[in-house]
Amino acid sequence: MSSGPIPTTPPSGFRDFTPEQADARRRAIEAVSRVYREHGFQPVATSAVEDLKVLLGKGGGENEKLIFKLLKRGEALDRAKAGTEELADAGLRFDLTLPLARYYSKYGSTLPHPFKAFNIGPVWRAERAQKGRYREFTQCDVDVIGSDSWGVEVEVISTILKAFDAAGLKGVQVVLNDRHSLLDGLKRAGVAEDALGAACVSLDKLDKMDKDKVLAELGPNGDKIFKTLEGIAATPALLSIRDAVNKLVGRDAVAVYPFLVRGFDYYTTTVFEFRHPSFAGSIGGGGRYDKLTEKFGGPATPACGGSIGFERLMLVLEEQGQALAGHPDAVVTVFSDELRGRSLEVAEALRAKGLTADVFPGAAKLKAQFKYADQKKAAFALVIGPDEAARGVVNLKHLATGDEQALTVDEAVARIAQH
Amino acid sequence: MSSGPIPTTPPSGFRDFTPEQADARRRAIEAVSRVYREHGFQPVATSAVEDLKVLLGKGGGENEKLIFKLLKRGEALDRAKAGTEELADAGLRFDLTLPLARYYSKYGSTLPHPFKAFNIGPVWRAERAQKGRYREFTQCDVDVIGSDSWGVEVEVISTILKAFDAAGLKGVQVVLNDRHSLLDGLKRAGVAEDALGAACVSLDKLDKMDKDKVLAELGPNGDKIFKTLEGIAATPALLSIRDAVNKLVGRDAVAVYPFLVRGFDYYTTTVFEFRHPSFAGSIGGGGRYDKLTEKFGGPATPACGGSIGFERLMLVLEEQGQALAGHPDAVVTVFSDELRGRSLEVAEALRAKGLTADVFPGAAKLKAQFKYADQKKAAFALVIGPDEAARGVVNLKHLATGDEQALTVDEAVARIAQH
Repeated sequence: MSSGPIPTTPPSGFRDFTPEQADARRRAIEAVSRVYREHGFQPVATSAVEDLKVLLGKGGGENEKLIFKLLKRGEALDRAKAGTEELADAGLRFDLTLPLARYYSKYGSTLPHPFKAFNIGPVWRAERAQKGRYREFTQCDVDVIGSDSWGVEVEVISTILKAFDAAGLKGVQVVLNDRHSLLDGLKRAGVAEDALGAACVSLDKLDKMDKDKVLAELGPNGDKIFKTLEGIAATPALLSIRDAVNKLVGRDAVAVYPFLVRGFDYYTTTVFEFRHPSFAGSIGGGGRYDKLTEKFGGPATPACGGSIGFERLMLVLEEQGQALAGHPDAVVTVFSDELRGRSLEVAEALRAKGLTADVFPGAAKLKAQFKYADQKKAAFALVIGPDEAARGVVNLKHLATGDEQALTVDEAVARIAQH
Repeated sequence: MSSGPIPTTPPSGFRDFTPEQADARRRAIEAVSRVYREHGFQPVATSAVEDLKVLLGKGGGENEKLIFKLLKRGEALDRAKAGTEELADAGLRFDLTLPLARYYSKYGSTLPHPFKAFNIGPVWRAERAQKGRYREFTQCDVDVIGSDSWGVEVEVISTILKAFDAAGLKGVQVVLNDRHSLLDGLKRAGVAEDALGAACVSLDKLDKMDKDKVLAELGPNGDKIFKTLEGIAATPALLSIRDAVNKLVGRDAVAVYPFLVRGFDYYTTTVFEFRHPSFAGSIGGGGRYDKLTEKFGGPATPACGGSIGFERLMLVLEEQGQALAGHPDAVVTVFSDELRGRSLEVAEALRAKGLTADVFPGAAKLKAQFKYADQKKAAFALVIGPDEAARGVVNLKHLATGDEQALTVDEAVARIAQH
């Protein structure tokens, strides 16, 4: 069909991961997923593909250019090419919130109430490809649907904080604000109703831009806006959320921050953002949104959700050398086809004790097998030649030091488990 | 953009899962992934989207109608609509093998040799939607690239058998064959070179169709074909694979089966299939294929891979009531906003002991909170009212029996852990 060589690189904006990166991503997702589950959140799974009507909503607009649409096939495609219908009627999800809204609209009455949901998976956005911005990326959402209690915010924020911890990123901070208080403050500072959006957009840049520049953007009453917002007393709900989470995680993780905007349209009252000293900008966020299911014709439903910026989390972990990639505890070499069975047995004995044992997959000289053990970054290599097999021992080599010992399998297990 | 109501169902051929199903799927994937890792396989991660040149290859053909193509956007779409270029140049992967081939072609020289890879993830096929056939489904592949030793087959088959076990499906059987022996047998039985494909297609139906019908399809020398194939002596490699795997898993899991075809084009020598008494047809399979990387201009590379039929696995597990969905050990109710902190503390104490504790996410009467605990299928509910808080105890209710006890937190942890 096509001319020219078949490419070995992924399309622009898409990524391949090294085995170490892929392993670290899997382990981080498993860690986050475990914490979400331990806190009583239940997984929601929908497919990557949604009806374009769901993705675009009544309005179409903003999101349309972000959506990867699936080309129709067969006769439907012929009709579309002839101009009698659209070329696509389905596309890839661009977030996990809209699928959750659809899901809850359809199945809500059969679900526990309130419903604590989590979803971890890829989403796709047709953004301009640039450094650090990808067209496929992973989201890790938790949401509680069906309660307006501030206890929901406590659940969402504390669960996400513990998920960051479990994924290996310690010391994550949370800033917290109330959208009503913010808008009230802006109005009291003299911002006109139709200028609230612009003021919020400017304030939203405070984590990446100098305060002076933000002040300049805010115009003549910038100073007044700052003073007014600084003077806002936190609402009792914000203080309750802050104190409960801080007590629960055993440190001052949460602070009320009257300048936090976190977008403009979506959230209704509480907004929060996760930050880390090693990263400029947020590494997650969320808030309360009460209009989730209205789009599908349902009544206004109180909901609050939060999300880990998974790609940023992995970036920070990788930079800190904290990514959770694993390596085999031991590579068990295979001396010969006759002795392969013995190597497989020894590997099983290691695995039975919870160790990761990689049997050399093939037949090669021991030198090549030791090279393989190095490539796999294994801690130990085991050799079982005819002598060792006859004596019921293994030759255990510690790869970092080169130390070798003839040990029984039990002794070898104990030695490997110590490292 | 669209008229009419926004749908709440997924597009035809795509699925939503209940929280229990989604949980069971996640747990099965984690179990499979853990076994793959414990055996020294490393995860490969590529994106869902591939260049159409990669998906279609030089030939295009067969696969083209299976591929969900992504509609171009912006100016490229305008040019395509004007007829000067194609409407799509990328699509969704339809398996995990082709992405692996591309990946290995690009990065092979930097990877351990041989390379033990695994990949678990969704693939998409634009098949006609019908019962049990979905347009998005999960594959769980393991592959070893770079060795022609029969030890590779042992690694692949035994690892997959243990993954089935870990996912909760015991007693999986393996049938094993050699493609060369099969084709030799067919030729000796008088099947002409250009009729080999048709004969293989007929034999491939043996697990779902009566032998008589297969015989009829094979034509006049059907009997001779059967007798010839029955008389083939298994190759030493097949016997070595069978014996090594059986010894490793401690039961007669593997049998040589001279009628096994497992497709026609792809595999070169060894083929195998996973079967289970409770399911007609295969629940997984694989084999040796040596032409993986030639498509991308590389040399012939020996490779062997296998795959769990994940959707079938989940079907069997669900039918047997063996799916791994989890439920919270306890729902901790919240008596009042003032006592929410105490409930959160108690939940943390449970989690610290490895228990799953779900704090009621909101504020509601205790009756609604007990209903929630039932909906979540929790084993216990805890109530901490002012009296309990003052006395430093919790009221522990066993939901199945209704038994209630006032216990210290430590006593409650011990009681819950016992259940």
